[in-house]
Amino acid sequence: MTDTTERADTAAGRALGDAGLRQADLYFRAANYLSIGQIYLLDNPLLREPLQAEHIKPRLLGHWGTVPGLNFVYAHLSRQVKRRGTDMMWIVGPGHGGPSAVATSWLDGTYTDVYPEVTQDAAGMRKLFRQFSFPGGVPSHVAPETPGSIHEGGELGYSLSHAYGAAFDNPDLVVAAVVGDGEAETGPLAGSWTAHHFTDPRRDGTVLPILHLNGYKIAGPTMLARMPESDLVSMLEGFGYRPHIVAGDDPAEMHRTMAATFDRVLDEIAEIKEGAGRGAARGGVRWPMVVLRTPKGWTGPAEVDGQPVENTWRSHQVPLAAVRTDPDHLRQLEEWMRSYRPEELFDADGAPVAESTAVVPDDIERRISGNPHANGGLLLKDLTMPDFREHAVEVPAPGAVRSEATRVLGGFLRDVVRANPRTFRIVGPDETASNRLDAVFEETGRAWNMATLPTDRNLAPDGRVMETLSEHLCQGWLEGYLLTGRHGLFNSYEAFIHIVDSMFNQHAKWLKVTRDLPWRRPIASLNYLLSSHVWRQDHNGFSHQDPGFIDHVVNKKPEIIRVYLPPDANTLLSTAEHCLRSRDYVNVVIAGKQPTLNYMSMEDAIAHCTHGLGIWEWASTDAGVEPDVVLACAGDVPTVETLAAAKLLREHLPDLRVRVVNVVDLMRLQPEEEHPHGLSQKAFDAIFTTDKPIIFAFHGYPWLIHRLTYRRNGHGNLHVRGYKEEGTTTTPFDMVMLNDLDRFHLVCDVIDNMPGLGVSAAHLRQRMQNERLRCRAHTREYGDDAPDIRDWTWSS
Amino acid sequence: MTDTTERADTAAGRALGDAGLRQADLYFRAANYLSIGQIYLLDNPLLREPLQAEHIKPRLLGHWGTVPGLNFVYAHLSRQVKRRGTDMMWIVGPGHGGPSAVATSWLDGTYTDVYPEVTQDAAGMRKLFRQFSFPGGVPSHVAPETPGSIHEGGELGYSLSHAYGAAFDNPDLVVAAVVGDGEAETGPLAGSWTAHHFTDPRRDGTVLPILHLNGYKIAGPTMLARMPESDLVSMLEGFGYRPHIVAGDDPAEMHRTMAATFDRVLDEIAEIKEGAGRGAARGGVRWPMVVLRTPKGWTGPAEVDGQPVENTWRSHQVPLAAVRTDPDHLRQLEEWMRSYRPEELFDADGAPVAESTAVVPDDIERRISGNPHANGGLLLKDLTMPDFREHAVEVPAPGAVRSEATRVLGGFLRDVVRANPRTFRIVGPDETASNRLDAVFEETGRAWNMATLPTDRNLAPDGRVMETLSEHLCQGWLEGYLLTGRHGLFNSYEAFIHIVDSMFNQHAKWLKVTRDLPWRRPIASLNYLLSSHVWRQDHNGFSHQDPGFIDHVVNKKPEIIRVYLPPDANTLLSTAEHCLRSRDYVNVVIAGKQPTLNYMSMEDAIAHCTHGLGIWEWASTDAGVEPDVVLACAGDVPTVETLAAAKLLREHLPDLRVRVVNVVDLMRLQPEEEHPHGLSQKAFDAIFTTDKPIIFAFHGYPWLIHRLTYRRNGHGNLHVRGYKEEGTTTTPFDMVMLNDLDRFHLVCDVIDNMPGLGVSAAHLRQRMQNERLRCRAHTREYGDDAPDIRDWTWSS
Repeated sequence: MTDTTERADTAAGRALGDAGLRQADLYFRAANYLSIGQIYLLDNPLLREPLQAEHIKPRLLGHWGTVPGLNFVYAHLSRQVKRRGTDMMWIVGPGHGGPSAVATSWLDGTYTDVYPEVTQDAAGMRKLFRQFSFPGGVPSHVAPETPGSIHEGGELGYSLSHAYGAAFDNPDLVVAAVVGDGEAETGPLAGSWTAHHFTDPRRDGTVLPILHLNGYKIAGPTMLARMPESDLVSMLEGFGYRPHIVAGDDPAEMHRTMAATFDRVLDEIAEIKEGAGRGAARGGVRWPMVVLRTPKGWTGPAEVDGQPVENTWRSHQVPLAAVRTDPDHLRQLEEWMRSYRPEELFDADGAPVAESTAVVPDDIERRISGNPHANGGLLLKDLTMPDFREHAVEVPAPGAVRSEATRVLGGFLRDVVRANPRTFRIVGPDETASNRLDAVFEETGRAWNMATLPTDRNLAPDGRVMETLSEHLCQGWLEGYLLTGRHGLFNSYEAFIHIVDSMFNQHAKWLKVTRDLPWRRPIASLNYLLSSHVWRQDHNGFSHQDPGFIDHVVNKKPEIIRVYLPPDANTLLSTAEHCLRSRDYVNVVIAGKQPTLNYMSMEDAIAHCTHGLGIWEWASTDAGVEPDVVLACAGDVPTVETLAAAKLLREHLPDLRVRVVNVVDLMRLQPEEEHPHGLSQKAFDAIFTTDKPIIFAFHGYPWLIHRLTYRRNGHGNLHVRGYKEEGTTTTPFDMVMLNDLDRFHLVCDVIDNMPGLGVSAAHLRQRMQNERLRCRAHTREYGDDAPDIRDWTWSS
Repeated sequence: MTDTTERADTAAGRALGDAGLRQADLYFRAANYLSIGQIYLLDNPLLREPLQAEHIKPRLLGHWGTVPGLNFVYAHLSRQVKRRGTDMMWIVGPGHGGPSAVATSWLDGTYTDVYPEVTQDAAGMRKLFRQFSFPGGVPSHVAPETPGSIHEGGELGYSLSHAYGAAFDNPDLVVAAVVGDGEAETGPLAGSWTAHHFTDPRRDGTVLPILHLNGYKIAGPTMLARMPESDLVSMLEGFGYRPHIVAGDDPAEMHRTMAATFDRVLDEIAEIKEGAGRGAARGGVRWPMVVLRTPKGWTGPAEVDGQPVENTWRSHQVPLAAVRTDPDHLRQLEEWMRSYRPEELFDADGAPVAESTAVVPDDIERRISGNPHANGGLLLKDLTMPDFREHAVEVPAPGAVRSEATRVLGGFLRDVVRANPRTFRIVGPDETASNRLDAVFEETGRAWNMATLPTDRNLAPDGRVMETLSEHLCQGWLEGYLLTGRHGLFNSYEAFIHIVDSMFNQHAKWLKVTRDLPWRRPIASLNYLLSSHVWRQDHNGFSHQDPGFIDHVVNKKPEIIRVYLPPDANTLLSTAEHCLRSRDYVNVVIAGKQPTLNYMSMEDAIAHCTHGLGIWEWASTDAGVEPDVVLACAGDVPTVETLAAAKLLREHLPDLRVRVVNVVDLMRLQPEEEHPHGLSQKAFDAIFTTDKPIIFAFHGYPWLIHRLTYRRNGHGNLHVRGYKEEGTTTTPFDMVMLNDLDRFHLVCDVIDNMPGLGVSAAHLRQRMQNERLRCRAHTREYGDDAPDIRDWTWSS
């Protein structure tokens, strides 16, 4: 695994010897050459003939600025891996690093392993160049298509959180995370530097941040590059790191400095790990990191059309833009490419010569682009699944007794943690106890490697619960953890999960693309448990009331998306177990934490969840024949209101045939052509009818139900109630009244949509209005719901 | 304005004298007493009789933990304002600081100014207590209802960015921003510490961050409170601040330290401002800040039921939870409240005694809660609006020549900047030039107060363009700027605006609530310009393709929301001017930056935008009578495809009467009962017909059009094409083909929805399929769109 020349270098005072210097530089030059080729060339990849306009792509799309720095880092990381046998992956934070990640993995041999048609020869190089940022080809960002990546470039901010997620529970893994100085300006990145406080040097791997300051973002300078260096160091030390600075623009000198620095840094990491292994204190560790200052567009054209380019923002994208039309640009491009001396880098067939890949580890799995952690599905093992049925609540009769659904789930999650001590984590913004999952603390603690006080509870250096008041960090951690082949759950307040809308987007898009990449193995689903939901944010008020995450989620590909609204504890258990077993989805489960009625025995719950929706015969009065009206519901609070409405109708309009339908799996509502879970038209019609009024009480924004069902036969008869942005600080029942989702209003909706029900219906309608007034008056007077509402049960 | 006693103190070496100590402590105790009263009491506000269970609220909702620290800060800020006459507002970052903001503003007299029914006497105090977190009352967070606030509590992360936004262009204003140690863990907050690098000490006001470390969030310790203090100081110094630490738990000692510290801090600020006025260098300023360490729940119950409460997470919410049922809790509450000695704080009528409000400034506008900047509509002036018509592009004929719409807009924005040098700002993540608004740089630069290099361009210490690679910071800045009575525009890539989904939510909710608060004056609308949109992210690929921000936006109250899709340059100009004049909305404008056909002269564009949608007669062949089919479109790219389809139909099926409808104002599609811009059913039917097929080409996700129109008569005939998450790195036309939005597919849609068109239609359909194949083949071969597609015009 190690290389004798390099060992000699090390013995000689850790300086990079001439052979090592040459090897690193050959790799660096080769990667740079291949990167530029991707941006520019359709043909003539080895410059075996003079460069002509027709060799150039018609649209020049790609980014050079960040690439040489990345190539430089990769060369030196590889060298360390080869010498030490380190288990290492890398995360490319700079959004436009695509050419580098592709170039280095092709040099490695990894690219050809994954895409055998892109051979390591002139023909393969031509393909490699041509496909880049080309229709039908590969994106200009690091992407799912890129071997060795778990991190999409483009939307910036998540490189460090992904890196930490990957490092958890992989004690021997080093995750080198390159953070661009553009990305470093984002909030999510700024908030993830201190994530090491949650890692355990015994149990977890190491994140090695490499802050790459090339000075510019798209069009202007970056803050971190222009801060006084003393401020920068002070800031990074404050974050808890020991920064090592590598700065310069002379490649030879930079190779020597970088080699020596990575030597020191990896020694420091080894010492910390060794100390941890010996039982040294886990907190207060100062992890090393690297600050790399190189010119933006390093080794590229210094000047174009009389304007400085290297080391300015002008090298962000394509430094020579008019190559097809301006002979001078064409000449400059050829000179630039030839400055890397391709004839020294590639042999007659176009394969990399041995010396130019001498820094590459021999073992394929040790090549950074080939590290199996970056294709987590390869390493994924099923969870050891405890029996969720053991946590079933007793349901003597439907709607008679209450449970806190998430508290029941907490017991099951505790058992999942217990059975999977190294492959399952729960993340959340400090709400695990608030969301009543605190049974997990019987088995584990909150991960914490900072100072503790005697009054602290449930903190542990190796805790499986990751709590920090940053949804971004929670999401990034979990994504990194899943993408490297493990399992987990994100629990959060419903309203504030919008904080990670955009991160969800990127993950869902990643999953969609990987479905078409057979070499990417399926990974565990991303599971959201949204509790403290819109209907029970009566105390926190309007700013905490937003059920729109579902709307956001269902815009993504149906193949990826699942949304569940279990109405009670046993259905939540069944749903959660199903989600934890699933692969390659994003599962959104919405379940309240407040005491709510139970309806279904465990066996009934399993059957109901398996169907995804169903008629609740016990609550219906249609006696198995065609109903007069359908009351449908999805969500725990709407289910209570629907049942209460059904009961009012049963009492006051006993001749009316009412069918009650409960929906757990929201995607059942879509046509089968549009979602894999979609019901057939026939099945849908059998449940909802084609011509009877359907009063649908929904957890979220009402128009979502219309959007899911607008192709259904019965859509014209559908009347949906849900949250319509009417909320304030009030009581739970007043919340549903404010949005016309309450039992009394549902009864009125039935009456209003069934003309001809006669005078008894008209009386009932008036009575319902009076009931609303009574409830509101009680609430305003006593600050609470009327007891008959609060304590209502189906059997009462 | 100043107070003689306090001046004596200052003379005596800046120590807080006994009188000053007593005044500060009286205010502190009074505010604490009033805060606890809000959480607990329905009645007996002054404890004139022994506390009984019936005096206690039935639901105890509220948060004590952060409150005493906030009260302490407010007392000492007020004292400084009174002594110095400083123009000061505060931002309460800690989410659950509601009781403090309400208590201090009531003590101030500000609360009663705004809500005269909540008098400064026993009856008013009873109201104050009762309304808190009570149905029909006020939220437990700082909220629009709270005088002196521009910052909703709850979703954390934005206190500093709001503070900086408020300080811009208010050179004499000091914005004291209390940052909780929970909030400090969020990404957006972590990313906003360095925002001072964008402020100009000459032109902008001062943000005084007060990092309040009380040690705990909901259920566990906070990172910043447990970091070694040396790390904390190092980090804050690295951010560019001079931190002053105030730590302790003895109120008397803390009062002295805080008074002396604020004295020093405000002197430092005055020195910096004075230096800036004298022309000192603007960059490299080290602004002072305060780190305040106090116990969580300071001065609250030390122990409850044998568990430590003060200085632990247990004091986060309601420290004594069972007051109505547990006599011991009730006794403890009474002791706790009496520990503040209410008889010394309030007179016989319940009004604050003079000495307990001695720290309060006499001038109402100087009281921190009464600062007019916190009710920005009071200070708002109309923009001086240049004539947008001067920027009109010549349109010799519809669809004949191209413009880059946003580049045209840039010229207008330059003039807006010029005409409003202190009240208008443009924010964005480093994309002003990329979005082709760079004409603004003829007038101003990017705000930048760090080191510069000779190669830099368009940087200026007082630049009006605020660019940082943090959408969170951009949004927070703009919100703070608007809420304090100024104007602005956020320009961003469409896909990544989802990063601020949740911030948009909070702002839209804020606006909705303020509509019911007459004392809150209207503010300028929040204007988003989304360019680099989904259809032209062909080069950046799938991860950059997401038009879903509209879907997110339209979930909020129709009264607040406007969405515009101008198809060309002149309609964009007209739309932008309208948005910049508007009040209390969120306007979302989506417009491409690529060369696109122009259709309308300026006068036509104004008329079209005023109607919001309309029939384009010149593109239609229905000759003013009933059409056979309606081709509708919204968005610049769908408009081109629709016109091209109309032209194909005109050529190949000349007898077919085609009506082309373009929609600029998306909200016109909703029924008038649902949105103020909604078309009447009659008007809608007149345009779209009730029975003819409507093929609608839409910029965003197609189901949004269904959601907006499902109550329309013609909805059953509506067929929508839009983005359906099919994208990759390809060409612009391939992008529309991938999503079946292309001209050829639209023609097929017409044919498929009009059975009986006969054999010529069948032939055309086949031809359209062949055209698609031809285009795809060209793209795969040449990496670009076929020239006839790329260069297509209506007149070609």
